[in-house]
Amino acid sequence: MIGVAILGYGTVGSGVQKILSENRGHIARMVGDEVRLTHVVDIRPLSNMPPEVVVTQRYEDVLEADEVKIVVECIGGAVAAYEFTRRALESGRSVVTSNKELVSTKGDELLDIARAHSAMYLYEASVGGGIPLLRPISQCLRANHILGVDGIVNGSTNYLLTRMEREGVSFPAALGEAQRLGYAESNPAADIEGWDARRKLAILAHVSFGARLSDEALIPTTGISSLTPDDLRCARAFDGAVKLIAHARVQNDQWNGWVSPAVVDGDSPLYGVSDVFNAVVVHGDCVGDCMFYGRGAGSLPTASAVVGDVIDAAQHLNTPKQEMDFEVIPAFALDKEERANWLVRVMGADQETRKRVQEALNVEKMAELESVSGEKMTAVRTGPMTDLEADQAQARLEGLAKGSFIRFLR
Amino acid sequence: MIGVAILGYGTVGSGVQKILSENRGHIARMVGDEVRLTHVVDIRPLSNMPPEVVVTQRYEDVLEADEVKIVVECIGGAVAAYEFTRRALESGRSVVTSNKELVSTKGDELLDIARAHSAMYLYEASVGGGIPLLRPISQCLRANHILGVDGIVNGSTNYLLTRMEREGVSFPAALGEAQRLGYAESNPAADIEGWDARRKLAILAHVSFGARLSDEALIPTTGISSLTPDDLRCARAFDGAVKLIAHARVQNDQWNGWVSPAVVDGDSPLYGVSDVFNAVVVHGDCVGDCMFYGRGAGSLPTASAVVGDVIDAAQHLNTPKQEMDFEVIPAFALDKEERANWLVRVMGADQETRKRVQEALNVEKMAELESVSGEKMTAVRTGPMTDLEADQAQARLEGLAKGSFIRFLR
Repeated sequence: MIGVAILGYGTVGSGVQKILSENRGHIARMVGDEVRLTHVVDIRPLSNMPPEVVVTQRYEDVLEADEVKIVVECIGGAVAAYEFTRRALESGRSVVTSNKELVSTKGDELLDIARAHSAMYLYEASVGGGIPLLRPISQCLRANHILGVDGIVNGSTNYLLTRMEREGVSFPAALGEAQRLGYAESNPAADIEGWDARRKLAILAHVSFGARLSDEALIPTTGISSLTPDDLRCARAFDGAVKLIAHARVQNDQWNGWVSPAVVDGDSPLYGVSDVFNAVVVHGDCVGDCMFYGRGAGSLPTASAVVGDVIDAAQHLNTPKQEMDFEVIPAFALDKEERANWLVRVMGADQETRKRVQEALNVEKMAELESVSGEKMTAVRTGPMTDLEADQAQARLEGLAKGSFIRFLR
Repeated sequence: MIGVAILGYGTVGSGVQKILSENRGHIARMVGDEVRLTHVVDIRPLSNMPPEVVVTQRYEDVLEADEVKIVVECIGGAVAAYEFTRRALESGRSVVTSNKELVSTKGDELLDIARAHSAMYLYEASVGGGIPLLRPISQCLRANHILGVDGIVNGSTNYLLTRMEREGVSFPAALGEAQRLGYAESNPAADIEGWDARRKLAILAHVSFGARLSDEALIPTTGISSLTPDDLRCARAFDGAVKLIAHARVQNDQWNGWVSPAVVDGDSPLYGVSDVFNAVVVHGDCVGDCMFYGRGAGSLPTASAVVGDVIDAAQHLNTPKQEMDFEVIPAFALDKEERANWLVRVMGADQETRKRVQEALNVEKMAELESVSGEKMTAVRTGPMTDLEADQAQARLEGLAKGSFIRFLR
């Protein structure tokens, strides 16, 4: 029997308990041994737990139980979760988690500890919820050099943008509705400011091309709170849709990336990814572009990825698998030369406005359309510009286009 | 050093050679040993082969070379490929292939032989080319029961349907163009009659829920050669697109499925899958719907999946991995009760035609539109009907709707 302990019995933890219990026979056949939940650690009192499971507030009970071989960390955050993960790995137990905050801030160190103690630290569920993503990249695509990734990795913001586009509602109104429906947190900052997407991008960059997880702190990040339904309408005038994109590329043994709203063209596979769905496009040198799509959150989808990792850990208790071994760990470097087309929204469409726009911008396409409130507005797709050139152009347009420069995803 | 032999040096075989050579250092680091191409078996004379590679027409040279541990079968077909694969597995060597014909017809037997000789038979590249698909299903999603799959798994037919829809050209015209561009074979029967998609569906059903590969022969299959651009136009009138769909479901410990043109609704992730791209939606009981998308063919994409399997085989030379072990091997059973909405195209839109349509069909939606040649036509989306009921309705419409009943994918 292989014992499993769950730390933190919330949305994901309870989903893991449910799957381990309902698919017990199926899992035992794959592992060749029974995989059984033996301990749950939570500071709250828990009801409805099977009698054979030890429910405790003392983490030490897990460390003292020899039958526990795998620890599922569902605490969240990077304080107690870090402490408990480190001690479990140091005791030779494998740890499975969906905690992207801990993986992105302390993952480099925790992976080193895991290697030193012949244990595994697995976090498939930390990006894309239940979508198979990290293991396909690091295993199935390993004949490739991965050149870059582009993803929609935060379901809450994708839901907000979908509502704003389809119903023309403002950002605050869409957020209020999403909070009522449980699609956005009561404290939504990590989602809407792009921090959650930034953590996931660091993890994707790690498994794709060996980036240091802690480089997360260097990724330029812009959230979606300043977007208006008029911006989304302008994007649609050029057959595009605005998404919160997590983008990374490798160039000359360094990597760079950003998290930012961007316009996705109608012929991109990311274009149709709406509501709470997530999708990641991986660019490989042999395979070209592959996309992985599905629900990026939720109790059972996320728990299904966690249990997939538990099965993997259980199958490799005595032969922990080699972590992927990369040729270089490229450093993060801002790419100041990267050029993008930009979407610019200007209120008004009279001759004088159009003239100022023509003078200030390298106009590739221009369209006149109506705002949500019925005013005329002008939408422009510019020629390629760097971030700096876009800032300069924005200054030239002062008073006309405040805060409405959005890059097109190439 | 781990020796690799390639049997058949065509499109895929030469791609495998290229990746093994160019990514040699990267692969050696992952495997912990050098993985080197030592033999190529082909009946044609080959030029430009590195001098250290033995080029031979005698397969026995491979069996006699102790350093060859992994055989890459790129011969195609099920005759010589079967013989050579069987003998390699019996000698304890692992075999990697993209040969869906062999896997679907002889895979059950070959997997048994592999298990009996502690070897691996790997075929990730046989479905979806380079898209990670079979391993994510059998490994990452293994905490789920897979309830079904729906895929666009044949790039040639998807390309033809895209051209017919966008340009309004006939099936023969689109086929001729695709053959000139190399997107369709000179003998296109296996693609356009759906046989290639049927083989891939059998493989997907095998890894998803333990179907016998040889049940492939039982899958009802309809190709795309009778479709017209007017059918595609009618589908678009209901925000849908016609795709060649490979569909399978598990019900009551049996499985069923079909390969057939079907109308995909605009809100399905399969809707935007155009040109030569492939995509497969997997329905899991915990994860919900996941989609895997990318190029389903081509030398380097397919070879990248083959080399991924070669790396896997090389890492498990002495510890061949457990094949997934399913609870049941469900038998194939036609699902005569399955109901679908149907798209019906009727030439003409006069009062008499509409009256006959209303009498013959359970009409859910009706639209009047123009055919490619400028005639009026009537498009109908019916209420749910079984295949038998659709046949009966078609008989009632005799003379009005010949051959233009297409099911909607649910």
